[in-house]
Amino acid sequence: MRAVVLREPHRVEVADVPRPEMSSATDILVRVEQTAICGTDLHPYEGRLELEADIVLGHEFLGTVVAAGSAVTRFSEGDRVVSSCVVSCGACHQCRRHQPGNCAGSRIFGLGLALGDLAGGQAEFVVVPNADSTARAIPDTVAACDDDILFAGDIMTTGYEAVARAITPGDTVAVVGAGPVGLCAAMAADVLGAAQVIVVDKVAARLKEAANLGAVAVDADQDDPADAVLDLTDWRGADVVVDAVGHESALLSSIALVRAGGTLSIPGVYNEDAITLPFGELYLKGVTLQMGVSHITEYMDEVIALTCAGKLRPGSIISHRMGLSEAAEAYRMFEAREATKIVMDPRK
Amino acid sequence: MRAVVLREPHRVEVADVPRPEMSSATDILVRVEQTAICGTDLHPYEGRLELEADIVLGHEFLGTVVAAGSAVTRFSEGDRVVSSCVVSCGACHQCRRHQPGNCAGSRIFGLGLALGDLAGGQAEFVVVPNADSTARAIPDTVAACDDDILFAGDIMTTGYEAVARAITPGDTVAVVGAGPVGLCAAMAADVLGAAQVIVVDKVAARLKEAANLGAVAVDADQDDPADAVLDLTDWRGADVVVDAVGHESALLSSIALVRAGGTLSIPGVYNEDAITLPFGELYLKGVTLQMGVSHITEYMDEVIALTCAGKLRPGSIISHRMGLSEAAEAYRMFEAREATKIVMDPRK
Amino acid sequence: MRAVVLREPHRVEVADVPRPEMSSATDILVRVEQTAICGTDLHPYEGRLELEADIVLGHEFLGTVVAAGSAVTRFSEGDRVVSSCVVSCGACHQCRRHQPGNCAGSRIFGLGLALGDLAGGQAEFVVVPNADSTARAIPDTVAACDDDILFAGDIMTTGYEAVARAITPGDTVAVVGAGPVGLCAAMAADVLGAAQVIVVDKVAARLKEAANLGAVAVDADQDDPADAVLDLTDWRGADVVVDAVGHESALLSSIALVRAGGTLSIPGVYNEDAITLPFGELYLKGVTLQMGVSHITEYMDEVIALTCAGKLRPGSIISHRMGLSEAAEAYRMFEAREATKIVMDPRK
Amino acid sequence: MRAVVLREPHRVEVADVPRPEMSSATDILVRVEQTAICGTDLHPYEGRLELEADIVLGHEFLGTVVAAGSAVTRFSEGDRVVSSCVVSCGACHQCRRHQPGNCAGSRIFGLGLALGDLAGGQAEFVVVPNADSTARAIPDTVAACDDDILFAGDIMTTGYEAVARAITPGDTVAVVGAGPVGLCAAMAADVLGAAQVIVVDKVAARLKEAANLGAVAVDADQDDPADAVLDLTDWRGADVVVDAVGHESALLSSIALVRAGGTLSIPGVYNEDAITLPFGELYLKGVTLQMGVSHITEYMDEVIALTCAGKLRPGSIISHRMGLSEAAEAYRMFEAREATKIVMDPRK
Repeated sequence: MRAVVLREPHRVEVADVPRPEMSSATDILVRVEQTAICGTDLHPYEGRLELEADIVLGHEFLGTVVAAGSAVTRFSEGDRVVSSCVVSCGACHQCRRHQPGNCAGSRIFGLGLALGDLAGGQAEFVVVPNADSTARAIPDTVAACDDDILFAGDIMTTGYEAVARAITPGDTVAVVGAGPVGLCAAMAADVLGAAQVIVVDKVAARLKEAANLGAVAVDADQDDPADAVLDLTDWRGADVVVDAVGHESALLSSIALVRAGGTLSIPGVYNEDAITLPFGELYLKGVTLQMGVSHITEYMDEVIALTCAGKLRPGSIISHRMGLSEAAEAYRMFEAREATKIVMDPRK
Repeated sequence: MRAVVLREPHRVEVADVPRPEMSSATDILVRVEQTAICGTDLHPYEGRLELEADIVLGHEFLGTVVAAGSAVTRFSEGDRVVSSCVVSCGACHQCRRHQPGNCAGSRIFGLGLALGDLAGGQAEFVVVPNADSTARAIPDTVAACDDDILFAGDIMTTGYEAVARAITPGDTVAVVGAGPVGLCAAMAADVLGAAQVIVVDKVAARLKEAANLGAVAVDADQDDPADAVLDLTDWRGADVVVDAVGHESALLSSIALVRAGGTLSIPGVYNEDAITLPFGELYLKGVTLQMGVSHITEYMDEVIALTCAGKLRPGSIISHRMGLSEAAEAYRMFEAREATKIVMDPRK
Repeated sequence: MRAVVLREPHRVEVADVPRPEMSSATDILVRVEQTAICGTDLHPYEGRLELEADIVLGHEFLGTVVAAGSAVTRFSEGDRVVSSCVVSCGACHQCRRHQPGNCAGSRIFGLGLALGDLAGGQAEFVVVPNADSTARAIPDTVAACDDDILFAGDIMTTGYEAVARAITPGDTVAVVGAGPVGLCAAMAADVLGAAQVIVVDKVAARLKEAANLGAVAVDADQDDPADAVLDLTDWRGADVVVDAVGHESALLSSIALVRAGGTLSIPGVYNEDAITLPFGELYLKGVTLQMGVSHITEYMDEVIALTCAGKLRPGSIISHRMGLSEAAEAYRMFEAREATKIVMDPRK
Repeated sequence: MRAVVLREPHRVEVADVPRPEMSSATDILVRVEQTAICGTDLHPYEGRLELEADIVLGHEFLGTVVAAGSAVTRFSEGDRVVSSCVVSCGACHQCRRHQPGNCAGSRIFGLGLALGDLAGGQAEFVVVPNADSTARAIPDTVAACDDDILFAGDIMTTGYEAVARAITPGDTVAVVGAGPVGLCAAMAADVLGAAQVIVVDKVAARLKEAANLGAVAVDADQDDPADAVLDLTDWRGADVVVDAVGHESALLSSIALVRAGGTLSIPGVYNEDAITLPFGELYLKGVTLQMGVSHITEYMDEVIALTCAGKLRPGSIISHRMGLSEAAEAYRMFEAREATKIVMDPRK
């Protein structure tokens, strides 16, 4: 089958590789129909995350089941499914506590041996392990198109959880960073009952997308975000601040936005070994910090229900549609920030 | 001052009565600017609830503070405020558990001695006890008009709480009864993240209002509500069912709509001494029942924030605006169901 | 193998039946080492629940894994395990909402075709389906003996959940009915932070057991339980009342014990089609009612951890130990209330 | 009246000062019967917190009401009360969100103008503002002695909240620091359903006290705390870690003890402006951090109920009882760590 393979940093190719095979009675084999490039894919692409040679990339995808293991109860041939990007074991202490993002045996598609050795979804076929837990049926009677459902397995649910775990309806939610996850968090905040959503970024196009979602868009190059948030909250600060960036400067500016007793929710990925925080200020304010890999399978049912209802429309952030055969160009554009979000069709 | 006084069942008059006086350092005196007639007012009006003679009626009102007790910290002369219809003590076991609706010393405006002997708000002036806890400032910088804020002290918050205490975002919420509380519950369900809202009633005009809110309106005279709900929920039933009626037949039909493991939330007022329930069915389904007087002061901040944000617009249910001097006619119309919701201006 | 078979009402035999066979890659086969008779077993034994002929009975058991399906990840041959009495699918709407007791495809061991056609655990061997979800390893490094762990799969966890889902630490918890589930609820209430535990029954021996657990034992034949509870709660009533009986009279007396705004938690099984409730009183009090089949697999990890720590000791309610060969006599004694709890050893 | 006055760092005197006067209808005047010295009192005593001259110190006290303002509803002359150390307004956004520790107008007894200008409780009399919210009646029918109730207003409730806001019953809770708050946290963890409590310190006497409470005591000078915790948790780490120290080194060692997806709860007071954290590790583990001034009035009812029930006995940490007249010596001893906890009687 054809698949996107990472030969070396900055070089992906569409190669002919063996179709992956099911190895457990709980696996399903899926013919991929849509697959997206995620910011996380740039970690191996840019060489920041070193993977084994010739890994098949990709962890955002949907498609149709072509085979199901004997112990799979929810799916059979012909079902259309979307998959969580993370596969959890369902049995460890964390999984039983409903924290699959902290699963002791977490695996992620297309990110190599250290993350579970799962071939990625930027391919004609992909094997989804632990399918009853990992995948979800795509309802066939709904208005929502695949473009929206596709993101239930990763960025939409990541942004959603970042808000859902912290919000009380009526809150003011501030989102730092209007990339895909930040925009998804802003959509989720609106649906989850935020009275006000404020989005901070420096890129005009992203701020415009945020404003289109109904958020108050704050250009950090023109206005002090802390002043803007205080001004909109009777000088209290935001009840919930989402750091959707994952960088020291974003974290520090997020702290300035949160009210006393508020929550700083951090879906942004942090790799830095050390960050110096104003801990006395955090203590005095009484801030709660929540962070870590998302618990996708805990929240994706809510996201799918709200997507099918037309209340979440993350497909709006797709900027480009390409064939899988154009993957090299797609990766180049995505790295160069020429595209917000690229979806590829493995049949092309 | 002028006030609406209940002389005997079915006879209200606008009488000249002494202006109420503050008796505690925590009281405020409010000049009333808008006051509504609530379904609960019909209990004394129709003689179902016997009150002392010449009670000043009314528990839905907003206005401007004209005097504040020395221990009041939140309000001063000139502030515009809306009041909870219930006054709780703030100090009993239930209040400290954040259940003011179950306060051991609960008082309700305009409902006589047994409910705390508080003169009502259908008058030029009203005293609001325990003001820091009972009243809320009306923000002056917002788009929402008084018509919406008025209901934060009673029906909007009652409908809101009925949903908020039970919903998980993504749920299907079914509301039985499209009266004022039911319509408020339907509005709240949408704002609180319901994927689907289904409203059941038999009155065409009410069903139309529900449909205007985006709900699926089910006419119980034409369709079996249980069939309709099962059809919309993949044969599961609704996650949350709100009984906004308060009558045995509504309760029994609500039970048929709720899914296994779902919640039946009952803001509707029950006075019946005995109701025969299919308890084996409730047990097998594993239904949770929540009921009782609303915890208005626990939820009205959220409601006000969402109203100010324009996400809740309960003012849309107002059908008539009249002067206080027309109170007798207003009560007649309201009892005769010629009006959905009547707001009176005490200055007229 | 030898197994307890129900020939007809009131007649069980230890028969030689085929060893059950695993049929799914997620099954395990367990050699049973301890198995108890539960009150629920009396339903078929007494003919109140009609089953197919020659059903192998029993749903409380522990033992050692002798074979594990290829998709089982948590267990392998030689592991000692205790099983939930209920097997849930893990994939339906309710399971994904962490309500396995409401699973659309719930199965219970030893209760016949309608409940999933699972051979029971009063046998030398039993097949446990969906093992990663249904069973739990018995830690081998702990002080707690098997006698305590045995009940984690049913009555201990049922009593525990009934309290856990309703309690706030510092609460007064009243338990109506000091049978096995009621005593387990009383133990759980103490461990979960109740300030006071009150147990109501009429049988002296049971009340003595309750008192031994540190509870205030109220003999309903000598004192009015409502008076006793009011007296112990500053005239409020209990914050949480557990109806561990499952009978109309217990339900009605439980309602009298609960405070305004309190919770009535009902693990007791209700089969009655209709019960007449004082609904006006329930509404005025603002009572929450929780009921239904327990979510065993949601709570059994907590129960096992607390049992291993020696904080829960449900083994104390075992009154008789017998060999499986004595099953006929064991059932006779249990029905005649000559035994509180009987544990049988299938090796004898 | 006599009161403990701070003349300058390291010099307290028992001086004759004017009896404080009530200034609001919501105040009560209390004759103090017991008052303790808290670690926080050392901040001004040692000059780390600069106060105005001649401040009356002390924020842990109980006594008898000698006068109550006209708007006070819960208390009257002769009632015995314990007071929260923090006075919150009850009306701001945070108070209405049940976060009084983050009150916009927080005041603390005996800590000077910046913290609300409240005279302290190390005196014959003290005025307690906002009494219905700040104070609690001491039940007179209970076994618990004043020694235990005294700490409900500060350290016991601080330790309790640190655990209560984070624990799931059955958890392993590790407490770093066995000072008064740490020991209270360990007591609370046991009562709140921890399966295991582990206490880490380096002082033998404190570790012995922890062991007396039933905790596993780990001497950080002899064993690596992280190894000890991993060894006791099947190599997972603790579900909840309480940093009861408030110092960079404690924070860093606490991070090493928490499991993936666990919570780090920080009642310890942080003044440091900047602490460098291993943020990548925190993110990968998915740790939640909770910190800030305790919400005393939210939790003290639970603590009082559990203290009256004899389940919490913080009086056990009192090492010395002295007369108020010996305050200078008491402060000297407490600073010199010659006493764990000193209680003074203002009548002596």
